[in-house]
Parts: sequence; C-alpha cells; structure tokens
Amino acid sequence: MRQVFAVVLAGGSGTRFWPASRRNAPKQLLAIGPSADLSLIGATVRRIEALCSKERTLVATGAHLVEATRRALPWLESKAFLGEPVARNTAACIGWATSIVARSDPDALVMVLPSDHHIGDEPAFHAALERALASAESAITTIGIEPSRPETGYGYIEAGEELAAGVRRVVRFVEKPDRARAESYLASGRHYWNSGMFFFRADEMLAAISEHLPELASGLERIERAAKAGGSAEQTETEAVFEALTSTSIDYGIMEKVAKLHVIPASFGWSDLGSWQSAWELSPKDEAGNSNTPDGILIDARSNLVRDLRTTGQSGRVIALVGVNDLCVVETDDALLVIPRDRAQDVRLIIEELARRGRRELL
Amino acid sequence: MRQVFAVVLAGGSGTRFWPASRRNAPKQLLAIGPSADLSLIGATVRRIEALCSKERTLVATGAHLVEATRRALPWLESKAFLGEPVARNTAACIGWATSIVARSDPDALVMVLPSDHHIGDEPAFHAALERALASAESAITTIGIEPSRPETGYGYIEAGEELAAGVRRVVRFVEKPDRARAESYLASGRHYWNSGMFFFRADEMLAAISEHLPELASGLERIERAAKAGGSAEQTETEAVFEALTSTSIDYGIMEKVAKLHVIPASFGWSDLGSWQSAWELSPKDEAGNSNTPDGILIDARSNLVRDLRTTGQSGRVIALVGVNDLCVVETDDALLVIPRDRAQDVRLIIEELARRGRRELL
Repeated sequence: MRQVFAVVLAGGSGTRFWPASRRNAPKQLLAIGPSADLSLIGATVRRIEALCSKERTLVATGAHLVEATRRALPWLESKAFLGEPVARNTAACIGWATSIVARSDPDALVMVLPSDHHIGDEPAFHAALERALASAESAITTIGIEPSRPETGYGYIEAGEELAAGVRRVVRFVEKPDRARAESYLASGRHYWNSGMFFFRADEMLAAISEHLPELASGLERIERAAKAGGSAEQTETEAVFEALTSTSIDYGIMEKVAKLHVIPASFGWSDLGSWQSAWELSPKDEAGNSNTPDGILIDARSNLVRDLRTTGQSGRVIALVGVNDLCVVETDDALLVIPRDRAQDVRLIIEELARRGRRELL
Repeated sequence: MRQVFAVVLAGGSGTRFWPASRRNAPKQLLAIGPSADLSLIGATVRRIEALCSKERTLVATGAHLVEATRRALPWLESKAFLGEPVARNTAACIGWATSIVARSDPDALVMVLPSDHHIGDEPAFHAALERALASAESAITTIGIEPSRPETGYGYIEAGEELAAGVRRVVRFVEKPDRARAESYLASGRHYWNSGMFFFRADEMLAAISEHLPELASGLERIERAAKAGGSAEQTETEAVFEALTSTSIDYGIMEKVAKLHVIPASFGWSDLGSWQSAWELSPKDEAGNSNTPDGILIDARSNLVRDLRTTGQSGRVIALVGVNDLCVVETDDALLVIPRDRAQDVRLIIEELARRGRRELL
C-alpha cells in the first residue's frame, strides 16, 4: 500500500471577497463558507484527515503568506509549509512539492487539492478521492465535477470510455468555453468541470515533467542537488530556480500533453466559492432568504447577505437593513461594502479604484 | 427699544435620525445639516447672534440633556440652560422660560425658536425675524412658511388681511391636514406652514397664559415665589410644578385661543430636517446625486446618502457602494443602517424592534 501525501495549493491572491480578502489575507484564509468558524483552508485540511495523515500533508503558498497560513492551520508542523519564493503558477508549484515528496518516498501517491473550495457532501467527496487514488496507480487522475449549469467561468474535461467503475479516460482538457459551447457541454454528458484536483504517483508526475516541461525538470534537479548539499543551499537555489522559471499552469503544461489520463466523474456539492454571491448561496438562510449576522435587524428585507467581520471596535453592534433586497453588506475593521448580489463580481472595480487612489493598505 | 431674549427649544427626542439620534443624543445635538461641523442647535444659536446677545439667549431642554446640550453650545454660560424636570410639552416650557425672562425684564421681547431646523437663506431669515419682533410689540406673532408642496406632516396657519407690510392677521391655526386639504391649502395662497417660531412681549404671553392656561399660570407663580425665597426652593418647586402639570402644546393651549395673532409669511429655505431623506435633500451632492463621505467609493451608484459618524475605531476606513441607488447608509460606533431614502421614515421600525429586543443601549 503506497503512502498518500496531500499537496494543498494555497497560493491564491483572491480579491473577489474584498473587503474580507486582501493581499495578505486571501480567500482560503477566510471563514466565508457555511462553517463560519473555520477558514476554507482549515476545512480543506480537516476534510482529508481520514485519507492522509497530517505528517504527510504539505501546504504550498507564497512565501509572504506562510506565516498567516500557519496560523490558519495550527495543528500542522512548520515543515508542512512550502513557501514559493515567487509565484510561477501551478506547474512549478506542483512539480516542486512532488519533488519534495519524492525525496522522502518516491513511491508515494500525491493528491493535489485547491484550498479555497467548498464541498457540501463529504462522504461523496471521500468516495471520489478513494477512487481517484486507486486510479492514480495506473495514470495521472483528475476529478471532474458533473456540471449543473452552462458555466463559462470554468475549464472543462471531456471524458471518453469508462475504464473501470467510475473511472473514464480523459479525451481532452478544454479551456473556458463561450456560452453556446458551455450549453453543448452541459447537454453532452461527456464534459465535466475541471476541479483542479489531481492524483498521481510522484515518480510518474516527475517523469511527465521531464518529458513536457524540461526547464522545470532541470530546475527541480538543481534544487534536489542543493538539498543534498545541506545548509542554506536549498533555499538559495529554490529562489534562483523559481525566479528564472516560466509561469505555466499544470493544465496547460502537463494535463493537455499527457496521453493517458483518467477522470473520476463526481458530484459532491462542490463550489469554487467565487464571490459573495456564492457565499450567500451556500449559507444557511432565514425564511426570507437572508444570511444575517446573529444580532442583525432585517425588516422588509429579502435575500440579503450580511457579514460583520470586524475584529476590533464596539461589540454588540447592530446592522439594520430596512426595505432592501438582494444586497451584500460586509463590514471589516477598515471597510464597508454594499453591493447587489448579482454584481458581486464587481468588487474588482473597488480594488481598481483603491489602487488608483494609492490606498494599498486596503488591498 | 426693548431688549430681545431668545428661547431656544431643545427638548426634542428625535428618533428619526437613528442610528445617529438617540435618547441622549437627539437630533438637535447632531451635525446632520449641510454644515457637517456644527450641530443643528449650534447653527440655530449662531444664526440669531446678530439679533440677540448670548447673555439673553436661553436654551430649554430636558434635565437629562442639559450637560450634552451645554457641550454643543460651549460659548453660552451655564445659566443659559433651563432643564425641564419632566417634559410637559411646549406650553409649559415656553411659559416657564418666559416667566424667567420677565423676572429680569418684564418689558422684554421674546423669540421662541426650534433648535433642530435648517435655514437655507439667513438674510431672508433675519429680515423675517426683524419683522416678527416689530410685530410682536402689538400682538403675539408667528412666522408662517410659504408651502412648496401639499405637506400633510405639518400644522398650518391660515392668514387673513395684511395689517402692515409683510404682516398678516392669523385667522386660525389648523392641525395636520389630509392630502386633499393640504392640496387646497397649497392652492389657497392663505395657508402657511407652522414654523414653531413665536415672538411676543413677555408680559403679553404671561397674560395669555393666565387667561387660557390658569393651571400653568398658577404653577409659574408658585415657582416665582420660591425663586424669591432663594436657596434650593426654586428647584424643588419647579420639579413639583412640572410633575403636576398637564401636557399642552403652545399651539393648542395659547395660539388657537388668543384672538389677536400676527403671522409673518416668509420663505427662507426652511426645512424641519425630518429624516435622512431631508438630510440628503439639503446636502451638497456630487454630479451623480450622492452625498458621500470624503473617502467613500461610489461606483455606478446614484443619489445615495453615505455617513460615517463613528467616533472610535480605525481611521481611514472606506465605505464602498457599487451598483446601488437611492440608499441611506449610515454608520455609528454601535450601529449600521441601510435603508432606501424613500423609506427613511421607517427607521422607527428599527427603534421598535430594538425596544422589543431590550437593546436599550441602542435607543
């Protein structure tokens, strides 16, 4: 039985949950899911504990976020955290983490998981992961989410014949489609949303990198040589290698090029929690459709999201909404946001305006 | 030339500007007018300085509000403040203040002014006051505001023949009308809004009280006798008298009963600032009709009122509104309000709900 390692990807910058999300507090560190007590990354790591011991859980994030990420995962040891010196996209990050796993166990199975998604049905999720890990014995495997709408914001995976129960061959990875194509994907029964979850043998992934991303492969070899030298050589070499690397996604650099890939079609209440709108959709709501603060007062108000995320200031503060519907009202110590739910993506306009005004402390 | 005394009425409780206004911070103490630096009562007293020296300016308020009111008017001496032991409406308050004026100068002219209104055109206001003071030599005089809309929320004064330039006889005081009647008042050219401003000789008002409100007259006499006795007798007697008095408005108790009254028709940009909607109407606005905070960010947002009235917490905080129109967004240290401008009167529903929840600290 191979050992299973998890690589949790926590490099996201996440501006779509402003004012909660910031450069130094990206989405995965926030408790914006239905579980208001646990950060998304905390929920992600808790969710896989039954499948992967915490000693074999790695968390890859930007070097500047390592400290904040450790605070969100206090039960992990400090060696669990890999700080990328500079962001060079998922191929570099996954390649690096895989190389580190292989250093201690070249026969390991690795599962790569995003840190900022929501999973509604954990038993179904665990079943999919077990199937994916079994499939990964023979091919790099991904999980494809059964689409529920003609979403144009995600990449898709086209599946071919069934190779085993619940395991299909990957025909191709496809980029974010236009609306018409997304409609046809939804109707096809052959297309799944790309979940960003990958499962593979460490040696097989490193071989695929050698074949399809030789620049990355040679960089990882340089890091391994430096690691054997000991001292600060590894750190110095890692910085030099990352600095020089081209940014490439694992999808484009590996998945679209490897001939033999498996996909596990699955449906486990997945959401990428892409905006305050998603947060509202997933939250428990009162009979008027409001997701409210405990003390909030809502009068003639329907389908609003209200969040008080202040950490300082007066306790017992009240947020009162009268006669408004479908709004997001979100407070932090240094900002208040009011935006209709159906415009939640437009918080980016605020980010742009704050940048124009030089208000970097609010970004 | 008679001495002019001002009696500024500052007894309002004012819940319509919640969360800014509270039991202990009624509307007149707030800087909610276009002048964001000065409380409404501060603006009221400043506005009459040219007509009435500060030594002859009295401010009548509830005993529990005297301290807060003094802080809003630091340039007045402490003897300027009259604290009503309990609220017994305007007849008692005006009678009591007039009696105190008469104690030092029975020949004085008194002008009674509300403390929580907005005046847009000060020269026109001063002209109306001078006319009213001249008229008060011969009869109790009021100012009638030329109506600009069929308002059903105000009392009206029906005016008769012109007695002198800009001075008309009062035919009658009329209560708040229904819509049809308000329309006919607006069309009549004979009806004015009751401004709540009164001008009279102290001795004439005391005579009118003796005639029409004998209970109040005898109470005031008891207070005067106690004042002559010195020591704490006056305070004790004032408390006993107020406790026992019936609540009566000056309109009902005196104005509707005195045969000879004058009204000065006037138009000086008057507003009773009855709600956040009025505050928005009077405020300077950007080209999109927003009355915003200095640092606020408004994107695709029109005709909103935004107020940050926090006195503690983080400075440099940003309020960002995207894609919302015609809202009032008001923050204080302990509350946040979001309400459409056209429902601004409904903040009373929040007050009711807070009372139901026993959140007295927020009332």
